[in-house]
Amino acid sequence: MPPALAPHLPIIFDVLGVLTAASAGALTGVRKNLDIVGVCVLAAVTGLGGGVVRDLMIGAVPVAMLTDWRYLTAAAVAAGSVLLVRHPRLAGRPMPALDALRRRMPPATAYLVADSATLGCFAVSGTAKSLDYGLAAVPAALMGVVTAVGGGVLRDVLVNEVPTVLRRELYAVPALVGALVVAASDRYDPAATPIAFLAAALTMAFRIVAVRRDWHARLPAA
Amino acid sequence: MPPALAPHLPIIFDVLGVLTAASAGALTGVRKNLDIVGVCVLAAVTGLGGGVVRDLMIGAVPVAMLTDWRYLTAAAVAAGSVLLVRHPRLAGRPMPALDALRRRMPPATAYLVADSATLGCFAVSGTAKSLDYGLAAVPAALMGVVTAVGGGVLRDVLVNEVPTVLRRELYAVPALVGALVVAASDRYDPAATPIAFLAAALTMAFRIVAVRRDWHARLPAA
Amino acid sequence: MPPALAPHLPIIFDVLGVLTAASAGALTGVRKNLDIVGVCVLAAVTGLGGGVVRDLMIGAVPVAMLTDWRYLTAAAVAAGSVLLVRHPRLAGRPMPALDALRRRMPPATAYLVADSATLGCFAVSGTAKSLDYGLAAVPAALMGVVTAVGGGVLRDVLVNEVPTVLRRELYAVPALVGALVVAASDRYDPAATPIAFLAAALTMAFRIVAVRRDWHARLPAA
Repeated sequence: MPPALAPHLPIIFDVLGVLTAASAGALTGVRKNLDIVGVCVLAAVTGLGGGVVRDLMIGAVPVAMLTDWRYLTAAAVAAGSVLLVRHPRLAGRPMPALDALRRRMPPATAYLVADSATLGCFAVSGTAKSLDYGLAAVPAALMGVVTAVGGGVLRDVLVNEVPTVLRRELYAVPALVGALVVAASDRYDPAATPIAFLAAALTMAFRIVAVRRDWHARLPAA
Repeated sequence: MPPALAPHLPIIFDVLGVLTAASAGALTGVRKNLDIVGVCVLAAVTGLGGGVVRDLMIGAVPVAMLTDWRYLTAAAVAAGSVLLVRHPRLAGRPMPALDALRRRMPPATAYLVADSATLGCFAVSGTAKSLDYGLAAVPAALMGVVTAVGGGVLRDVLVNEVPTVLRRELYAVPALVGALVVAASDRYDPAATPIAFLAAALTMAFRIVAVRRDWHARLPAA
Repeated sequence: MPPALAPHLPIIFDVLGVLTAASAGALTGVRKNLDIVGVCVLAAVTGLGGGVVRDLMIGAVPVAMLTDWRYLTAAAVAAGSVLLVRHPRLAGRPMPALDALRRRMPPATAYLVADSATLGCFAVSGTAKSLDYGLAAVPAALMGVVTAVGGGVLRDVLVNEVPTVLRRELYAVPALVGALVVAASDRYDPAATPIAFLAAALTMAFRIVAVRRDWHARLPAA
């Protein structure tokens, strides 16, 4: 693992997270029958919102999405791809090359993959960037969770739904697990890169399995 | 056109935008039967919210509304005027001087004018201020759109409605057009002032015509 | 009154406000039948949200809750206590020591006390911190109100309710009264500490009496 990768870690996972989060937001927009502008707005809010809230709170202003062109590009690529493959007015046209893709991955599966990957990437990037800005381990892990769930919360509020993070107990918890792994590994810098990938994968797998097996964190009823 | 006007451009359009946006917010509060405090809160959120989000994201803190008295004054004047002319408990009293005004401009027309002028003023001021803070043209234009639609989004979320920007495709687009005109003209500084007025007027006219003619940006159905 | 207390005033009232606001948020979560993670999220948002918005707007970043461990601790203590005493899955277990407490204070009373104390503490701390950051009296008092009502607004938006500040006229007004008292007393520094306690108590009492006596700020109908 090249040690030169470590300083770029937050930004790599951040841009990956924008890509997956904006895809999840665009899929929500298509499911809600929004027009094309509405889908793009929802993709941008979901993809960029969590990172903006994190950057504001830790004092990283102007926020990264305004100074690094890769953020807006990732959001635009995600929104464009989802529109092309899934939006009824665009995707309804005969495009045989895409039909196989559509059949293989129903919208609910595509959403679950995009949303879980978002949790994993942003839990890592949010925690790592907050540590870089001098936060202690616990607040840094908390900012990892805020980055991971923030964009989705803003999206849910905009479309007038109660956010998943309030309704499903195993949504914030996987993000917190990944964030704590990154925060705990911070003092052993050389190992940071593989652990970051591990933490992202762990969060994503935890979330997918929790949904698929309908896991709950509930205590037994008294 | 006096060249001395150019440095004041963002603030002139910003305060004008606060005046029109707070009026639109107060009109919404009256329509929703809020009490007087509620109308004032909604006017303040709608009038000042977009600029606050912009200032936070570009790093212009403390935000302008806290350091320049003209912002709060503009919001208060707008809320007071709407309450006086439109609120049932105040406007119901016999005030013949205002009756002509009320008859000439039904609430829906007053709202459309205030809302469209808001889009135009804030698209210009948001883009211009972001350019002043060193942003590139595309993110600056994006911040113009955020300033223009931000206050209305916050208002709609507070009164539990899905924001117009998600439901009507020709809401964000006029703001984006005006913002792009300002961003594109930025490198020709001497011409900036007339182009700013032009961009604001263009956005406002585009929005009004889109509503009146029921324009849509839809692709033909497949 | 020891003059050495004055510099700590904002932080004392801020942490007290986090404690009461997070309790009010957790009580709302229990009332809404949220699971344990949901109750904790709602407690954190309600307890910390108003202060975060204030810190961002006045430029106090990283926000206080990320750099001072007492904020997160206060929110965690409040959420844990409410869960233990009120949550059906935890509080349902036989814990005789708590039964007397539960009987003495029905949930609605507990909520009113926590919410009114929040208004009082945050009106004081928000105004005092804003004055410390160089704001003039009127914007500082406004930030006191924003701190006082902000967390509750975020909570209400998350659970899809129209915020109290829009529906009940005597919610923002008590906070504004307390904030103005602090802002007005600022130039007489030696007296600041007793006046701060007085302002917090005044706000809290005003709010409780307004609810209990069903006071309204309405004008008589025309």
